[in-house]
Amino acid sequence: MAAASDIEPFWGAHQSGIVTATQRHAVLAAFDLYTDDRADIVEVLKRWTTLAAALTAGESAQVPVYQGKGVPTDAFAGATHQPTASDSLDAWQLGAQRLTVTVGFGPGLFTKNGKDRYGLAARRPAQLVDLPQFPGDQIDESASHGDLFVQVCADDPQVAFHAVRSLARIAPEVTTLRWTQIGFSPSDTGGTPRNLMGFKDGTVNSNGHPPADLDASVWAGDEGPQWMRGGSYLVFRRIRISLERWDRLDTAVQSRMVGRDKVSGAPLGGHHEFDAKNFDAKDAQGNPVIPMDSHVRLSAPENNGGAMMLRRAFSYNNGTTPFTERWPPWRQTLAYDAGLLFLAYQKDPRAAFVPVNQRLATSDAMSQFTTHTASGIYAVAPGARGPGDWIGSTLFA
Amino acid sequence: MAAASDIEPFWGAHQSGIVTATQRHAVLAAFDLYTDDRADIVEVLKRWTTLAAALTAGESAQVPVYQGKGVPTDAFAGATHQPTASDSLDAWQLGAQRLTVTVGFGPGLFTKNGKDRYGLAARRPAQLVDLPQFPGDQIDESASHGDLFVQVCADDPQVAFHAVRSLARIAPEVTTLRWTQIGFSPSDTGGTPRNLMGFKDGTVNSNGHPPADLDASVWAGDEGPQWMRGGSYLVFRRIRISLERWDRLDTAVQSRMVGRDKVSGAPLGGHHEFDAKNFDAKDAQGNPVIPMDSHVRLSAPENNGGAMMLRRAFSYNNGTTPFTERWPPWRQTLAYDAGLLFLAYQKDPRAAFVPVNQRLATSDAMSQFTTHTASGIYAVAPGARGPGDWIGSTLFA
Repeated sequence: MAAASDIEPFWGAHQSGIVTATQRHAVLAAFDLYTDDRADIVEVLKRWTTLAAALTAGESAQVPVYQGKGVPTDAFAGATHQPTASDSLDAWQLGAQRLTVTVGFGPGLFTKNGKDRYGLAARRPAQLVDLPQFPGDQIDESASHGDLFVQVCADDPQVAFHAVRSLARIAPEVTTLRWTQIGFSPSDTGGTPRNLMGFKDGTVNSNGHPPADLDASVWAGDEGPQWMRGGSYLVFRRIRISLERWDRLDTAVQSRMVGRDKVSGAPLGGHHEFDAKNFDAKDAQGNPVIPMDSHVRLSAPENNGGAMMLRRAFSYNNGTTPFTERWPPWRQTLAYDAGLLFLAYQKDPRAAFVPVNQRLATSDAMSQFTTHTASGIYAVAPGARGPGDWIGSTLFA
Repeated sequence: MAAASDIEPFWGAHQSGIVTATQRHAVLAAFDLYTDDRADIVEVLKRWTTLAAALTAGESAQVPVYQGKGVPTDAFAGATHQPTASDSLDAWQLGAQRLTVTVGFGPGLFTKNGKDRYGLAARRPAQLVDLPQFPGDQIDESASHGDLFVQVCADDPQVAFHAVRSLARIAPEVTTLRWTQIGFSPSDTGGTPRNLMGFKDGTVNSNGHPPADLDASVWAGDEGPQWMRGGSYLVFRRIRISLERWDRLDTAVQSRMVGRDKVSGAPLGGHHEFDAKNFDAKDAQGNPVIPMDSHVRLSAPENNGGAMMLRRAFSYNNGTTPFTERWPPWRQTLAYDAGLLFLAYQKDPRAAFVPVNQRLATSDAMSQFTTHTASGIYAVAPGARGPGDWIGSTLFA
């Protein structure tokens, strides 16, 4: 049913969905674990792997339902008596659509509320830090974190959601959905896509233009636990953009905040998107051409000890949030709840996302228009090598 | 920039976005009016028309900002000093993407809180009824209604949202966003698309398979006010589907609730999607082959005095809503906030949506799995005939 060009490879040393060219749609989902039995997690990860391999190949989802051993009985359990449930058919005949399923492990898999539920506490990588509270953070805990995480991407929104639903159906008593979030990217026009701020997003450090040495910046190596070799660490942030205010600024003002020309994407002082950034250049008045508080200056690898990440950018649009103005006549008004799903894969968040975001949250002029409202960090295990292997086998072995 | 095949015509006797083949993405947006000056509404509608004509032709949005006369001054008004603001560029070079902008008038435009703000109360069509409370409704008022409404559809999600943002920017002090809601439809596979329940959606009464006589069922005629001739009435319902429960049912059980075979889409007892429905057929036990409480039986035009509507179906996925189970061990769990954006255009909701939905809400077996959580009804004026004309000209003339 699926054309070969629509199929992204599933098996391999690394999970797919990281260096994979960005698809048009994403559904992110996090799960909490209610079982006390380590064997339940192993069973679910094996079944998730089998299902993900089938779905990404464009096959239908015959969902092998699993009740779990270490969980209380659900009042609706009678409805799940079938060992294998039928495909829900909402993505039937739509093909593979470049579907990828990328599985991550949250800190809660290793310890939760101080408890080592599955005997994994000693295997938690030092790289999997608890993220600090950054200046300006307004994190909604109910849309953050999660013991397990999946990033599902596809060129069709229904195919992506179908995969999440199918994964969630396998063992709802073991892995209970904590939150989901959908995102989109614009149609491919050949160049770097634009985000909702209207700027090109992904000129550097993205899977469109990745760092030259992935082993140095993205893939986990010998510096951490062996079970993570070939994996990566994912930092997720849902970043709300005050579009209703941003849209009122002059393009020139926006460009100075970003440090790039809005139309061409060139660093200020340059002419083309990929021109070198000249952070020393001064204008006639002696002011830096690329402002001191611009996003580009503060985030550039050369100004952050070489810190690199591989970002996959999706926009999101969760509608609008009402609030009442704080000045007369106290009118009811609305803010967009829309912006960027920031997904950054990295070798060590302690050397990449954490220090870079600390600078941005403190000093970036653009941060006046952005608010981080959800957050997560996950250890993305290496890939499953082939049929019979499963994602997480190196951790639970 | 835009290929001709990507452009849907804007000018005409009817607004586009009604019989137009369904696009891949929708952004719905409703606005409340804070002005006391009728001239402000006229000015906004003229500017919306000009902007919508440009955007649907694939041109960029030079937004003619309007402060309004009958509204209080905004503390941020200084930022809108430019008579024309630049395009926000987030959809630049993406092309027209079959963009359509369809404008509707809510009951609040005619009277609000008992007040005839704009001298339009006497022109309110009888067809623009206040919808009753149906059994099972759980309507979120903050995601419902609105004095003005736009249905924006396009084959690219960023192009659709860009149009809403651009319209909202013209006069934020006059037309303040009340809510927005995004939706999607799956890739075109040639057949009737499937909804999130996994069933073909749109076999009858949809813009994929429209009623034969649009003048009899969709377009307003001489039975109502002259200013609405060539317009239509839109009923919007956001219908949440309990996917987490639906996905646990046998396919056969689902098919009996719908009254159609899930795989083929054929009415039960038939073999092909478009086979005639035999409501009199009985099985060997004497039971109706198409159950009495099935969706197809209760909604069929032939069982509703011929009531027809033109539906445009989009799915939505707003993530998940946490709740605590009502039985031991009172586990925290999640429900999908996902389902269907029901958009039905009709000549007279009093003879179509209202009585049909009353039956469905009362008797449809499928209603156990659906909840209407947002609602709106809008008078969708006739189209603007050409440059110089504007949507709403017949009402305000």
